[in-house]
Amino acid sequence: MNKFVLLFLLPFFVQAQNTQNKSVQASRNWIKQEGPAILSAYADLLSIPNHSSDAVNIRKNANMISGMFSSRGFSMQLLELDGAPPIVYGERKVPNAQRTLCFYAHYDGQPVDPSTWKNAPFQPVMYDNAMFKGGKQIPLPKKGETVNDDWRLYARSASDDKAPIIAMMAAIDALKAAGLQYTSNIKLFFDGEEESGSPHMKSYLEKYHALFDDITVWLLCDGPVFQTGDPSLKFGGRGVTDMELTVYGASRPLHSGHYGNYAPDPGFMLSQLLASMKDAQGNVLIEHYYESVEPISEFEKAQLKKVPNIEQLLKEDLGINYTEGTGQTLFERLLLPSLTVKGLSSGNVGSLARNVIPSTAVAALSLRLVKGNDPEKMLDLVEAHIKKQGWHIVYTDPDHETRMKYPKIVKVDREKYGFPAAKVSMDHPAILPVIESVKSFTGDKLVLLPSEGGSNGIFTLIFDNLKKPGISVNIVNHDNNQHAEDENVRVGNIWYGVDLMSVLLTMPPPTIEKIKKR
Amino acid sequence: MNKFVLLFLLPFFVQAQNTQNKSVQASRNWIKQEGPAILSAYADLLSIPNHSSDAVNIRKNANMISGMFSSRGFSMQLLELDGAPPIVYGERKVPNAQRTLCFYAHYDGQPVDPSTWKNAPFQPVMYDNAMFKGGKQIPLPKKGETVNDDWRLYARSASDDKAPIIAMMAAIDALKAAGLQYTSNIKLFFDGEEESGSPHMKSYLEKYHALFDDITVWLLCDGPVFQTGDPSLKFGGRGVTDMELTVYGASRPLHSGHYGNYAPDPGFMLSQLLASMKDAQGNVLIEHYYESVEPISEFEKAQLKKVPNIEQLLKEDLGINYTEGTGQTLFERLLLPSLTVKGLSSGNVGSLARNVIPSTAVAALSLRLVKGNDPEKMLDLVEAHIKKQGWHIVYTDPDHETRMKYPKIVKVDREKYGFPAAKVSMDHPAILPVIESVKSFTGDKLVLLPSEGGSNGIFTLIFDNLKKPGISVNIVNHDNNQHAEDENVRVGNIWYGVDLMSVLLTMPPPTIEKIKKR
Repeated sequence: MNKFVLLFLLPFFVQAQNTQNKSVQASRNWIKQEGPAILSAYADLLSIPNHSSDAVNIRKNANMISGMFSSRGFSMQLLELDGAPPIVYGERKVPNAQRTLCFYAHYDGQPVDPSTWKNAPFQPVMYDNAMFKGGKQIPLPKKGETVNDDWRLYARSASDDKAPIIAMMAAIDALKAAGLQYTSNIKLFFDGEEESGSPHMKSYLEKYHALFDDITVWLLCDGPVFQTGDPSLKFGGRGVTDMELTVYGASRPLHSGHYGNYAPDPGFMLSQLLASMKDAQGNVLIEHYYESVEPISEFEKAQLKKVPNIEQLLKEDLGINYTEGTGQTLFERLLLPSLTVKGLSSGNVGSLARNVIPSTAVAALSLRLVKGNDPEKMLDLVEAHIKKQGWHIVYTDPDHETRMKYPKIVKVDREKYGFPAAKVSMDHPAILPVIESVKSFTGDKLVLLPSEGGSNGIFTLIFDNLKKPGISVNIVNHDNNQHAEDENVRVGNIWYGVDLMSVLLTMPPPTIEKIKKR
Repeated sequence: MNKFVLLFLLPFFVQAQNTQNKSVQASRNWIKQEGPAILSAYADLLSIPNHSSDAVNIRKNANMISGMFSSRGFSMQLLELDGAPPIVYGERKVPNAQRTLCFYAHYDGQPVDPSTWKNAPFQPVMYDNAMFKGGKQIPLPKKGETVNDDWRLYARSASDDKAPIIAMMAAIDALKAAGLQYTSNIKLFFDGEEESGSPHMKSYLEKYHALFDDITVWLLCDGPVFQTGDPSLKFGGRGVTDMELTVYGASRPLHSGHYGNYAPDPGFMLSQLLASMKDAQGNVLIEHYYESVEPISEFEKAQLKKVPNIEQLLKEDLGINYTEGTGQTLFERLLLPSLTVKGLSSGNVGSLARNVIPSTAVAALSLRLVKGNDPEKMLDLVEAHIKKQGWHIVYTDPDHETRMKYPKIVKVDREKYGFPAAKVSMDHPAILPVIESVKSFTGDKLVLLPSEGGSNGIFTLIFDNLKKPGISVNIVNHDNNQHAEDENVRVGNIWYGVDLMSVLLTMPPPTIEKIKKR
């Protein structure tokens, strides 16, 4: 965005702040009045088990959510594919809207092992603080009772990812009570199998393509706010692919005495190969590994500089003295492709260790990719490096003839389902108004992260298949035990979600696009 | 041994050859006449289950063996220790003997999994050739029937290690039938828990110390002859110790996306550490690692040169293109300390691999030691090397303070029960006559190996605690499936054992010592 455009936008920002403040005020009033009712409705939603494989309960969830929004004036339908949980889809049109926002969330959750939970995972329970901070169980609040922001509601999916759904419901009610109008057409898209990898997402987007053509921007409501508790927006995620390496010694495990110091030693051979790939500072030594990385814009660099420095906090949390890439922050590092060891295996260690030279040693590698990295080409680079170290590459276990021919043999198993990074530029014209709307009530505390470290196939599908921009809009606390036992959401974060949804539903019309069209 | 002594010995060698030939002839005659009876007696001995934990059957074995030798004029006793299988001990004195030979063997065997055996492991069965060569089952031969050398008797412990016991029994009978006298006092020492690591051996040797004081040389009758089938003697084994290394990343497994390219990566860290220890040719790079190795004598070097070259045979068998230490043979390599990876473990590989950066990576290392290497000092060298690479060594899992203080932390678990190599010099004055006796009937085919690659705690106890020399006297075929299913012994190897025992029982008096005393 150039200075000329910024100058034009000044009056728009002032107007935006006013509108947004009204929306936030509506949200706060509604929470004050109806907070206990919102939490009670949320407890009802959380009481339905929601693993994607539980077809009966998944449909109960879908029907309940669909009902919540159809009773609030949304046109709802369940999108269906054989053998897949339904997508809860809804829309509400606004006269003369010049933009369509689509809110993504998922209503399925991770599987649960109740024996590890303090309370039953689908019997939501309120605590007066986080359990790990000594919180005690309290009853759900009744109408008129004061609700404390630091209370926590414990249940599977309390944070991941039913929170945006309840926040949206409350925001709709809040804006209605205050008589405020939406400024964009609104679409809802609630996934029912995200925690199982959304295997039908691509087919859903293809089958129902017509529903998504008019979407201006996707708001991906999943994941926690910044580690400090500050609000955050993220503009993409890394891509991912894998490679497994199997290094061969003798054709059978050998006695470590009879053959030690003579037979090839797969553990050392693998170590030498891996050691050639990365230096002690964590820099990948594979040729051209960093070359295809697309540099971020000046605007993004400026935002990155504003991200609170949490390096020491992270080190303390992780119990580490150093990090890879000396002097770079986590968020700088996440803008580079990674190469990490997910697993090593050869023979046995500990009490199972035997006096053998194992016949193989295996390393599972993970590659996280950034904008510009092609998954196949990155795997090619690793293979080229391996060859350069003098290894003979095979793709199935070597036969005797191959074994006799080559001193160093490695089997390469390439991941078939890798996908590239999905990242939208922060200064994309459809994205800037979202940033500004959120900032209008969060102020400068809003943390803008160019990319998550993790990989989200849904981002990639939306960006690459639908050719639409999207950003990750975060609501819940980061210390929420998502995916684990005792998942919870901080009540203050639900309220933040209601504020946020109210603001997004009423964000100023897309002036930027208009300016550009002149 | 210097040339002067060799010159003196010439007349002795001529005399030796004559005596030995008579003994071998006695053995051959006896086998021809009583071969079927010997095999029948052996089948009886092999029909008693013999795992050291099976107290009832272990004692049956001990009593049967004891009876075999007491009925042949040996003074037998069962040496006892609480909770241990008995040692079957025997002696027979010869008037004016100037040397005492003690024959070690073990009557216990490896555990069996009958489901993996072709026949029941304790119902000995004769085959007309090795199963893997297409051999068919045949009845045990009857008196007068011809016995073929390539027949195989299948049963647990047929090779490992009841064969020397039956060979000794037959040799005693053969010499008696031929009216030949023993030339040494003879002691028998049959272990009942070798396959369980002989945990009581040290206590036995201490408790019954007085029985072993007068032994001139121990003949350790265990293990197969040379890979080519040629007869062999081995003069010791390598020592052994272990070390396990645990390398630390963050204090918990991390998401490989959220933290990949930032958090320390234990798999790569461990690889870098291991890669620093050994070069691509298999040479250990740890400072001073080879310095304490005691060089072998010129006599031994000369013997080593005569060992048949089996390098290509070994490579084909192991399915390998190269071996560590370019240009050196297996038996040269076994005279150096080894450093091998027994196991690697970090996270998971294959279908269990997850998207994590594991919190630790572990390597189990094996060190095989040669004469001159002290187990503790060798582990010290590895530790010194690790420190030199910039690692902070801990001996228990690091606490938070330690984690925050050091970038590279490794936990070292040192083996507590390592032991040094046990190796007698081939030209030891008590050993040379044994070599020459065996050579008198095997001729130049006899392979003399300075050391086994494996480690035998019994060698070490005898050499270090009893301060006695000993050598490994081998009888059985190397393709005998010892420790596995379908263990077997080639009948020709039993006959070789009878020849060998006959020769050893009648080897010429210790002229060498006499010469030295002059």
